[in-house]
Amino acid sequence: MKLLEERIQRDGVVKEGNVLKVDSFLNHQMDIAFLEEIGKEFKRRFEGEKITKILTIEASGIGIACITARYFQVPVLFAKKTQTKNIAGEVYTSKVESFTHGKVYDIIVSRQFLDSGDRVLIIDDFLANGKALMGLFDIVTQAGASLAGAGIVIEKGFQPGGQMIRDMGIRLESLAIIESMDEQTGCTFRK
Amino acid sequence: MKLLEERIQRDGVVKEGNVLKVDSFLNHQMDIAFLEEIGKEFKRRFEGEKITKILTIEASGIGIACITARYFQVPVLFAKKTQTKNIAGEVYTSKVESFTHGKVYDIIVSRQFLDSGDRVLIIDDFLANGKALMGLFDIVTQAGASLAGAGIVIEKGFQPGGQMIRDMGIRLESLAIIESMDEQTGCTFRK
Repeated sequence: MKLLEERIQRDGVVKEGNVLKVDSFLNHQMDIAFLEEIGKEFKRRFEGEKITKILTIEASGIGIACITARYFQVPVLFAKKTQTKNIAGEVYTSKVESFTHGKVYDIIVSRQFLDSGDRVLIIDDFLANGKALMGLFDIVTQAGASLAGAGIVIEKGFQPGGQMIRDMGIRLESLAIIESMDEQTGCTFRK
Repeated sequence: MKLLEERIQRDGVVKEGNVLKVDSFLNHQMDIAFLEEIGKEFKRRFEGEKITKILTIEASGIGIACITARYFQVPVLFAKKTQTKNIAGEVYTSKVESFTHGKVYDIIVSRQFLDSGDRVLIIDDFLANGKALMGLFDIVTQAGASLAGAGIVIEKGFQPGGQMIRDMGIRLESLAIIESMDEQTGCTFRK
């Protein structure tokens, strides 16, 4: 997605340790008009797919998923990262290892909101090692729901997650795939 | 907001300990068409106010804030609950005591996204004891920004947060104010 690549070049900041900061428009401050373009692009790519629910993970996936859901006219469900007393007792759960935070955490989704009648589109901001996506896929599987695919805003193509997901036969649509990144010269994108 | 009160009556579940579960449409699974009605109502209530940014707090405020921001055509900024290596070093920070989780946590916002030129609308799903709102207000104050007010979806009117915020002279618009709630009979609303 040309518009996204240009925005990453303009406003993204590459930091030591393969960190790409896009928090001025995507995952801390959010440019809503820009997210609408992202939502439209996901809709275009998954056009014709019957989708009943968008599944994402807190926190930075939620805004993208909600704006995207407008174009699919389906509800959004977000996986929570810790158990709270506000969630129903009956949950699907999976474990996710976080690249960003360097720890393992549980994700949970209430059983009542996902079942075998659902066809799910997973939406998230980043794909690097694929751990969050695998956790969400695990929950879709536990629910007996079917997966239409995963829509990712930025894939770090030099990390193994994307290849792993594609090798599993899961349809993966990444709007920008970063081939390499450098603190001085910025990002290069897969053609 | 009549539509919201009806939805709470229909789909909300009152649990022991003054817990109101609205996770079927508001803060776990999210009904996006319904959130659009909420966004329009916030816009109607704050019509004529010059607002440059919507501030919320992860995780359950984000979806509501993003959909609401479409009507104000401003960016959303969400306060993060833990420090991660993906956030800029220069942050505003405040402490918040959570009613839901029963603990104190830090919230942080990057300085680069909020300054004295901003006029902020705070959006959140619930107001009970007002701790999250006070933390966000503290961050707005640290930034030297001005506050247009706070838009809350559901205020628990029998807890002290709403009164405290109003006594401070902050404009508070709660779309539903619960006067009392009961596991058998459900919610009654302030007229």
